[in-house]
Amino acid sequence: MSGIPSIGKETGLILKPESNTTALDNSPFMRACRRESVPHTPIWLMRQAGRYMREYRELRARLSFLELCKTPSLAAEVTVNAADRLGVDAAIIFADILLIVEPMGIELAFGKGEGPTIHNPVRTSQDVDRLREVDGVESLEYVFEAIRQTRAALSADLPLIGFSGAPFTLASYIIEGGGSRNYVHTKSLMYTDKGAWHALMSLISRALVKYLNAQIFAGAQAVQLFDSWVGSLSADDYREYVLPHTRSILSSLTPGTPVIHFGTGTGALLELMREAGGDVIGVDWRVRLDEAWRRIGHDVAVMGNLDPVALFAGKDYIRSQATKILEQAAGRPGHIFNLGHGILPETPVENVIALVDAVHELSAK
Amino acid sequence: MSGIPSIGKETGLILKPESNTTALDNSPFMRACRRESVPHTPIWLMRQAGRYMREYRELRARLSFLELCKTPSLAAEVTVNAADRLGVDAAIIFADILLIVEPMGIELAFGKGEGPTIHNPVRTSQDVDRLREVDGVESLEYVFEAIRQTRAALSADLPLIGFSGAPFTLASYIIEGGGSRNYVHTKSLMYTDKGAWHALMSLISRALVKYLNAQIFAGAQAVQLFDSWVGSLSADDYREYVLPHTRSILSSLTPGTPVIHFGTGTGALLELMREAGGDVIGVDWRVRLDEAWRRIGHDVAVMGNLDPVALFAGKDYIRSQATKILEQAAGRPGHIFNLGHGILPETPVENVIALVDAVHELSAK
Repeated sequence: MSGIPSIGKETGLILKPESNTTALDNSPFMRACRRESVPHTPIWLMRQAGRYMREYRELRARLSFLELCKTPSLAAEVTVNAADRLGVDAAIIFADILLIVEPMGIELAFGKGEGPTIHNPVRTSQDVDRLREVDGVESLEYVFEAIRQTRAALSADLPLIGFSGAPFTLASYIIEGGGSRNYVHTKSLMYTDKGAWHALMSLISRALVKYLNAQIFAGAQAVQLFDSWVGSLSADDYREYVLPHTRSILSSLTPGTPVIHFGTGTGALLELMREAGGDVIGVDWRVRLDEAWRRIGHDVAVMGNLDPVALFAGKDYIRSQATKILEQAAGRPGHIFNLGHGILPETPVENVIALVDAVHELSAK
Repeated sequence: MSGIPSIGKETGLILKPESNTTALDNSPFMRACRRESVPHTPIWLMRQAGRYMREYRELRARLSFLELCKTPSLAAEVTVNAADRLGVDAAIIFADILLIVEPMGIELAFGKGEGPTIHNPVRTSQDVDRLREVDGVESLEYVFEAIRQTRAALSADLPLIGFSGAPFTLASYIIEGGGSRNYVHTKSLMYTDKGAWHALMSLISRALVKYLNAQIFAGAQAVQLFDSWVGSLSADDYREYVLPHTRSILSSLTPGTPVIHFGTGTGALLELMREAGGDVIGVDWRVRLDEAWRRIGHDVAVMGNLDPVALFAGKDYIRSQATKILEQAAGRPGHIFNLGHGILPETPVENVIALVDAVHELSAK
């Protein structure tokens, strides 16, 4: 793409940081984060390395999800292969949004084909008091090592995104003990013990600053905060119980590194999420991209927003939807194409590739 | 409340329809549906008869959910007892949003403590073709009989609400075979076979017109269309795949009977739901009530919008939230207080009563 030779696994060659930096900085993804003009609209896809890919399922037949996360060479392999296979404009490190809760003393497990389970959920202020302050993130060295190995193996001009769950989404898993439909325990703690709630959110936020900055230091060009479940909250609750914490994180990250701030079901929260911060606001398919962008303001970049289920329809349908979203972005600098949430397990790989190709072709200048 | 003697189960006395009509028409609930002035803001609660009540759990220990729905005397008892116990301003017939799918040839079952399961889900246009047209709703006579018995037993001035699931929500259950997180099958049919999708939605809509009109004829003063899961759609998809069907139903119901049009997660859909129709638009807690009302227009009534989880917090918290919502309604005629979704199973009954009392007291003129 940029003419700079790629750093392949074959050669093991590592270019000097300065060389990387220029190519990466000029990549369509990084330019879009800064709302600069781009040769084509950059696209990457949440959960682009995952169960929908045969290679991934084969690996997972041999080791568990957490084992894969904790084996840097394999996490790097999965990350690089997915990006190469799809031809996307950014890689995202293979990891889980919840990894940061382990050093807090939370016991994290993933059942077969199920979501995360936490055996010692946090329900009371005493439980919050028992959580460990994350003074250092050394125990997450496997993530940083995976980032370093990925960075070394990725094309020199392909940005790598680091990430974590955002405080509310992490708190909801820690409190519910897994996924949830109604967030009864989470909101009950929030409503009945503000002190404990804010203590928990602050503890998570302090950990996230260290964790995300360490990912950046290890070689991530951008980071994403996934507040996947924040759409369960009212706008007033978001303002009171979430916004100050998210803002405190976003204002403490390494300057110059773009941050993507993402949530789903955020139709009533977009303005507040923008207020909390982020260079790019990720929106789901429920709100039209043009309306979302108008609401958050054109002085911030936007990411989205195809319904992941659209990838189950035929290629013509996918192309028509890509056209629609690109039209809504109106060629304005600062649009990163993505789904409104992660790729679903049964998604046909060829449809994902068709989407990437369609976005590149339709947006080429 | 109105001075007209109530029709108790004790006396078995049935007043002439004309007497009922005046008292019912002047009830706070009916007046609010028409956006007329009220002595206090009327309140009722979705799923106000349900598992959170001991009496209900005792009944359910003896018979299944569907058996209860299909035994008019017991459905009526559950309906009346809940309304009396809570002191709410309307009763809602004890039934399920899915009952109308049985005469279409769908096999409906409810597992213990789980949601509905459909053993013969509709996935293809052939499946749609095999569905039975609901020419008459005689097989749902048990619902109409429950309405008649409830109407006879309820206070003469207490309105009774009939209801059903709305076409999209019904279609999603029929297609997925139960509840869903991502609606992959539903949206796939929608995106890949428009003809089959619209045929299914039309068939459901024709059935709903008959079903809801028969509920009104049996004695319901108002009806509610529950489009509980429509918030999973984008605004553009709603406009194309849902709105015409909902509009066709809402314009075919018995004139003079207020219709409540409800959904959750509808932050991006409110204007379109209003366009589809309904005298009252039900909104969940994600959008502030004042903002929702401004968006749908003050020439329509609004219902909502306390987070059901608020009922797990203390009475002071509940009162503060009721105050906030009433302030947002700003004393404007046409507000019906409700939760943003159904009462959750573990909700303390005394907190529900505290909410009803708080709304009555705080809004009394």
